Amino acid sequence: MSNFEIPLSNQLAWLDRGTSEIFPLQPDSQDPSENLAIRLKQAERPLRVKLGIDPTGADLHLGHSIPVRKLRAFQDAGHTAVLIIGDFTARIGDPTGKSEVRRQLTPAQVKENAETYLSQVRPILDFDTPGRLEIRYNSEWLNQLDLSEIIELLATMTVGQMLAKEGFAERYQQQNPIFLHEFLYPLMQGYDSVAVKADVELGGTDQKFNIALGRDLQRHFGQSPQFGLLLPILIGTDGIQKMSKSLGNYVGLSDDPLTMYSKLEGTPDHLLTQYFELLTDVPLDQLPEQPREQQKQLALTIVTQYHGEAAAKEAQQAALNLVKGSTTGTGDSVPEFSLSSVDFPAKLFYILKESGLCQSSGEGRRQIQGGGVKLDGDRISAVDQTFDSPDQLVGKVLQVGKKKFARLVD
Amino acid sequence: MSNFEIPLSNQLAWLDRGTSEIFPLQPDSQDPSENLAIRLKQAERPLRVKLGIDPTGADLHLGHSIPVRKLRAFQDAGHTAVLIIGDFTARIGDPTGKSEVRRQLTPAQVKENAETYLSQVRPILDFDTPGRLEIRYNSEWLNQLDLSEIIELLATMTVGQMLAKEGFAERYQQQNPIFLHEFLYPLMQGYDSVAVKADVELGGTDQKFNIALGRDLQRHFGQSPQFGLLLPILIGTDGIQKMSKSLGNYVGLSDDPLTMYSKLEGTPDHLLTQYFELLTDVPLDQLPEQPREQQKQLALTIVTQYHGEAAAKEAQQAALNLVKGSTTGTGDSVPEFSLSSVDFPAKLFYILKESGLCQSSGEGRRQIQGGGVKLDGDRISAVDQTFDSPDQLVGKVLQVGKKKFARLVD
Repeated sequence: MSNFEIPLSNQLAWLDRGTSEIFPLQPDSQDPSENLAIRLKQAERPLRVKLGIDPTGADLHLGHSIPVRKLRAFQDAGHTAVLIIGDFTARIGDPTGKSEVRRQLTPAQVKENAETYLSQVRPILDFDTPGRLEIRYNSEWLNQLDLSEIIELLATMTVGQMLAKEGFAERYQQQNPIFLHEFLYPLMQGYDSVAVKADVELGGTDQKFNIALGRDLQRHFGQSPQFGLLLPILIGTDGIQKMSKSLGNYVGLSDDPLTMYSKLEGTPDHLLTQYFELLTDVPLDQLPEQPREQQKQLALTIVTQYHGEAAAKEAQQAALNLVKGSTTGTGDSVPEFSLSSVDFPAKLFYILKESGLCQSSGEGRRQIQGGGVKLDGDRISAVDQTFDSPDQLVGKVLQVGKKKFARLVD
Repeated sequence: MSNFEIPLSNQLAWLDRGTSEIFPLQPDSQDPSENLAIRLKQAERPLRVKLGIDPTGADLHLGHSIPVRKLRAFQDAGHTAVLIIGDFTARIGDPTGKSEVRRQLTPAQVKENAETYLSQVRPILDFDTPGRLEIRYNSEWLNQLDLSEIIELLATMTVGQMLAKEGFAERYQQQNPIFLHEFLYPLMQGYDSVAVKADVELGGTDQKFNIALGRDLQRHFGQSPQFGLLLPILIGTDGIQKMSKSLGNYVGLSDDPLTMYSKLEGTPDHLLTQYFELLTDVPLDQLPEQPREQQKQLALTIVTQYHGEAAAKEAQQAALNLVKGSTTGTGDSVPEFSLSSVDFPAKLFYILKESGLCQSSGEGRRQIQGGGVKLDGDRISAVDQTFDSPDQLVGKVLQVGKKKFARLVD
């Protein structure tokens, strides 16, 4: 604690970069409970900055990285990141923004997801400086709650308040079922803030209700209520909808360098500034003028963050070769394979064998099963994936593992 | 179990006496899961018949005795009464029929209430025959529930189903707050049925939702769902509103014989048949013709149930004397005391001393504090109770303990 350096006032630019909202906010107040900037300037100990991640899926994408990056900024300013792995809450699933009830996950699925999540945020956070990171699993305290304590939590809220929450209101109006356990979710997330004594909680703009509820519960349990810091929901690479794995408009944090580079190089022009602001530390007044150059710099910068500079440059070169159709680049070369020798409809594992990417149909099947086969960067997981005509494939890059590529031609 | 005698079909008259509804009910079905009469006739073991009582107050009244009496009828037919003292649920309070949220009770209050409740139902139930009574406290299983199990319970119901429940619907419409923990109440009551493996649950007609929810939960946990047997809500001695301590139109199970007799002797004519049906075993075709005679028989029969025949007859005589103003009855005599010697306004403890019911004002105060002083059967608990004029007292009977009475006259 004694080594904690009080941040200078001019160091607070990081706080506002890309931030949608901070609450409570009385910008003219000098009261550190109403003004996070004042709180930070006057802090005599590292603040505890909470970010909860529910390990509900296997993969994180750049949209998820935004609050994690802000958490890193707090770490760099000397504060303690409290990363909560919602291993308990994930089993219910956050109903926020969902139009239907979510299926409950098994503990085993949750544990597996939690491990992959941690490996994916490792390039973003400071895992090494002592006192800068606390990783907590919310089953630690939620598993301990008994019915009396749960009644105490439930008794802090009314049905009306809960149904006024975005998402619930629409579902109730449309007579889509809301199951009672879904009402517990915001209370459990709020109780996490009590359990870790959070000073600040980070989240997407859709988390305002849940974070505000955490403030109420902290007050109920005699703590000073946390600040909420809300960050935008990222628009996906299609330029229209929010980034989401199921919509296919995402860049995964565990995408290999070439896939990540290729997707980001296609970032729509109108999103470039926002992507730079939210996903990089590049000063926004120093961006290249040409959108094409911005795309390249964005892709190179982000791939560097996750894979290092060498891999990023290699990916840039490989992508360049792909675009040129060249098979003789200095990075990975991409040979062509003509589909004219294949009878359609054709199984993918057969094409893998014929193209020489796999030694046999059997190896092709195993590679698909193992998740090693991608078509234009999208993983193919159906072992019996069949294509009816070469039109579905021509111009695309078929990839096995990280090193073997073939560009499919007529 | 081997001693269990299968009831004869003609013994089932007790099942229907005063019963409002049995569900499920397929009267023409021979399927024992759809027809309680068939289930009883075919039973090869005693059925487990659940009645839950939440010890939320200190006193039970005749309205509460109705399902307890039905429980006794099941006992007499060879079945097992499972009396659940809702020591856990009482701390929340059943929101059924309540227009406002109930204040939560402390564990100490609940424990004390539970003890007085048990002593009050003792005259009704068979406490002695082995295997006929199981007394259970629902904290036994509800205290053990953890958050995962509570989530499982909550996930069986939707907000819409819960808000459709009588009481909740009105409150939600009228924007009276419904606190989230109130939604837990019906689920906990339902889970009680799972915990004790109930075959039948008894309750007032306002309990249909809760008992039906118990059926759903039993199905969810792989049990055969219980039957529900619903009984009327008793109208109070005012002949208008449901019997309730707070409305003052009640006969308490712990009322002394004279109080109980006096209240019942005034039962409104239009309630007499219903009172006989619900509160006694007197065959309804053998009632006296005269309403005055019915009142006397009703009062005598019910006081006998709770205090024995001798005390009932003594109370009848004392009541007779009160009416006649006689001071020379064969039972307790009721001397008169003239208020002409008292200056008004007057403290009650002073009147107690002047009338000779207490030896001193100090004893008068202590008797009031100890709950031993009644005016026309209503306990006076304010030590400083003051009367402004003799008009408030003339014609009433002042009582100290069980033996000392004075009829107040001008």
